[in-house]
Amino acid sequence: MIDPRPVAHVIGLVIVALGGAMLFPMILDLSAGDPNWAAFLKAGMICLVAGGATALATANSLAGGLTLQQIFLLTVLTWVAACFFGALPLVLGAPGLDWTEAIFEATSGLTTTGATMIVGLDDLPLGANLWRGMLHWLGGLGIVIVAMLFLPVMKVGGMQFFRSEGFDTLGKILPRALDISSALVQIYVVLTLACAATYAALGMSGFDAVVHALSTVSTGGFSTSDQSFGKFVGPLEYAAVVFMLAGSLPFIRFIQLWQGEWVPMWKDRQVRAYLRWNAYAVAAIVVYEMGSNDFAFWAVLREASFNVVSVFSGTGFTSTDLSLWGPFPFAILFITGLIGGCTSSTGCSVKVFRYLILFEAVKLQLRRLYEPNAVNALRYDGRAVGDDVLNAVISFFTLFMLTFGLLAVALGLAGLEFKTAVTAAWTAIANVGPAFGPEVHPTGALLAFPDAAKWIMILGMLIGRLELMAVYVILMPRFWRT
Amino acid sequence: MIDPRPVAHVIGLVIVALGGAMLFPMILDLSAGDPNWAAFLKAGMICLVAGGATALATANSLAGGLTLQQIFLLTVLTWVAACFFGALPLVLGAPGLDWTEAIFEATSGLTTTGATMIVGLDDLPLGANLWRGMLHWLGGLGIVIVAMLFLPVMKVGGMQFFRSEGFDTLGKILPRALDISSALVQIYVVLTLACAATYAALGMSGFDAVVHALSTVSTGGFSTSDQSFGKFVGPLEYAAVVFMLAGSLPFIRFIQLWQGEWVPMWKDRQVRAYLRWNAYAVAAIVVYEMGSNDFAFWAVLREASFNVVSVFSGTGFTSTDLSLWGPFPFAILFITGLIGGCTSSTGCSVKVFRYLILFEAVKLQLRRLYEPNAVNALRYDGRAVGDDVLNAVISFFTLFMLTFGLLAVALGLAGLEFKTAVTAAWTAIANVGPAFGPEVHPTGALLAFPDAAKWIMILGMLIGRLELMAVYVILMPRFWRT
Ligand SMILES: [K+]
Ligand SMILES: [K+]
Repeated sequence: MIDPRPVAHVIGLVIVALGGAMLFPMILDLSAGDPNWAAFLKAGMICLVAGGATALATANSLAGGLTLQQIFLLTVLTWVAACFFGALPLVLGAPGLDWTEAIFEATSGLTTTGATMIVGLDDLPLGANLWRGMLHWLGGLGIVIVAMLFLPVMKVGGMQFFRSEGFDTLGKILPRALDISSALVQIYVVLTLACAATYAALGMSGFDAVVHALSTVSTGGFSTSDQSFGKFVGPLEYAAVVFMLAGSLPFIRFIQLWQGEWVPMWKDRQVRAYLRWNAYAVAAIVVYEMGSNDFAFWAVLREASFNVVSVFSGTGFTSTDLSLWGPFPFAILFITGLIGGCTSSTGCSVKVFRYLILFEAVKLQLRRLYEPNAVNALRYDGRAVGDDVLNAVISFFTLFMLTFGLLAVALGLAGLEFKTAVTAAWTAIANVGPAFGPEVHPTGALLAFPDAAKWIMILGMLIGRLELMAVYVILMPRFWRT
Repeated sequence: MIDPRPVAHVIGLVIVALGGAMLFPMILDLSAGDPNWAAFLKAGMICLVAGGATALATANSLAGGLTLQQIFLLTVLTWVAACFFGALPLVLGAPGLDWTEAIFEATSGLTTTGATMIVGLDDLPLGANLWRGMLHWLGGLGIVIVAMLFLPVMKVGGMQFFRSEGFDTLGKILPRALDISSALVQIYVVLTLACAATYAALGMSGFDAVVHALSTVSTGGFSTSDQSFGKFVGPLEYAAVVFMLAGSLPFIRFIQLWQGEWVPMWKDRQVRAYLRWNAYAVAAIVVYEMGSNDFAFWAVLREASFNVVSVFSGTGFTSTDLSLWGPFPFAILFITGLIGGCTSSTGCSVKVFRYLILFEAVKLQLRRLYEPNAVNALRYDGRAVGDDVLNAVISFFTLFMLTFGLLAVALGLAGLEFKTAVTAAWTAIANVGPAFGPEVHPTGALLAFPDAAKWIMILGMLIGRLELMAVYVILMPRFWRT
């Protein structure tokens, strides 16, 4: 039997912190004279009481550390609880969503997906839009911490390969965890401030700059406008490209950069592959668009760069109607979304590292067909990749594609058209943001989806964000018996 | 350096046999007084000369047997050569296709895909429609022989698991090969005759009965009518269900049945899973259709049974406009197509056996996350499944999905709409038959596709039919150096 108390204790503390974060939108609405501040006060009080009571009732239970099972439970249940409590202000105040919509919006926020239930973003109280950006930002920070501290120990999807970069044994988690987390928070704050300052310098209002910075460095994708980034066409798109890329690079490299070591970032194989693949995708689309239309080169380059990086990094801002781009650019974007960013970033999806390993693994399997005794001599960034990592990566990919397929079928069952079901499954499992099809509102909002489809997407976003295996493990009866 | 002579020798003999097979449509057209008989004479002569010369020039080269590399080469190049020579009559005579269309049609025939380039099937000379059915039949026979004799030795996609059922070592191939092949041919002929007799008894013309029998037991899908099986709605659909299922069951079990052993078929895990999953899919669609419309139960049951089994077995006959079924039935059909029939049948796609192993493999991987030392205790039909089989199956699935994705992107690049590109990639890689979208002719013919899309599908059909790894292996530079 797994002792649930340490898990409940940490979740209680997280909910208290989430309630504390609601002070920011409350103060903003208060100072703007918007009566919607009361929603954040009420929601914050509920978080404080519920989270505080849980944490107090389980006080001192964390002294023995966490077992592997408890880490799995903690990871999944923290997100579930935060999605529920984070939804409160959106039900209690503007835009007055119902529970399904609000939990969808909060889950889309905390998983950094960025698909929205709301049409009329430009008219929302400032606090509500700030809260949406903050959900992204907090979710992005949370996932980087999980990716750097927990996943390597959980050995999810081959992440044990990055174990030595964080720390070595379970016993050392807590001391190193504090060091790494505080370094991460510092870098994340600096990136966000730099992004907001750049946006403001290039012409966004102070408020728009802050909210878009929150949802850029977290590769989230919520906007304060129904037009998404279509409201900010021009140099601002290039600024977004820079910070979306930053959000999808490995944060461990930023920590090293911060300490004056620029070589690890420069030499990182997944960073190089990621930037190269982004460039290829942009180039392919520019060549295609220049060939099939007589657009101005610079406009095409800007549009392609922004939208490719937006989907590849998993941010999901749009600055144009992507469905008008024709099938080839659409296919490129679809694929880039199924690749995603680098490990230990806020980026989502399968991730560049796993594709690099996957290609090697498949090559090895093929080679074994005609050289039955070929040994695994696979190296990555100078280190040997064990069979356990290989198998974990292939299993991750298999589960990802199976889940993607099942989500698409379930969404079809819920009544969505083929294209809508496939792209909505894609946006959920890979935490990208946009979906395409007749049921999607012209602004990109998914509020017209049937309720069942919304719940299927909520599940899909959580499964995708938590690297699948972390979720599936706790669904196995055996997990609870060990 | 690989000695190409034994490979060329066998291919030469196959082409001679293919030329000999052209006598049947020639005689049919001659006796019907259709001048199109000349096309088969010319094509047959070309096959005889080209194949005969190749076989003679490489005479006696087979004495030393075949190496593993030569078996890979032989498998792939036999299909490529047969697709080229099989296309000849369709270029030299009616329907006068161009080379791209004719090679598409012949590849679609020999890979038992069943997607057609031709509108106006009802008005074709009899010989041309017979030839199309014969391409299916010969391709189906060829693939069963490859699946039972070659794939286990090639260890493609975990097929080494079935090695002991065929034979044990490479040295024993030839004697056993003749035994097994002749038993196979007998069973295949008996199944085809039984199917044709049933079709004729239930009201098809003799000619329609023969051609549809050829394309039923081979799970091919070509029809003599633009309406496909829509022309034969009623009891004939149930007859087709029986023989499509027969074509997608493991032929090794029919050999055993033939010898009076009915237990192996009855107890075969993939047979049971396959029939059960078919029943589930039919039931799901019937329940859905009865709930959303007020159709008559028996009509819905017949329609659902026919179309589910048609797609699941990879046959691809249609008796109704599937795109009108709504998103849920469509999603079910899409998934069943990605599963496919049993190993060592004429069925295609990933196959039931691999899914059964895959689910176990993923469960084992998940279990290893919280029980790091859990051993592989996987059993299938009473025998232990080794790690090599597990890894080969997972790699096969990974390659299948990657190839499916790449085909869809390539078809998007060639200009097809999203839905058309995805379903055309699906029909090619899984050798199903139908595709859906605005570029598809109302009869289901794909002749309006751009030429590039046709070639991409030709490639996809071959890769899918030859179990992917067999094709990819010979594309590796290392393969040629060993
Ligand atoms: K996103
Ligand atoms: K077929």
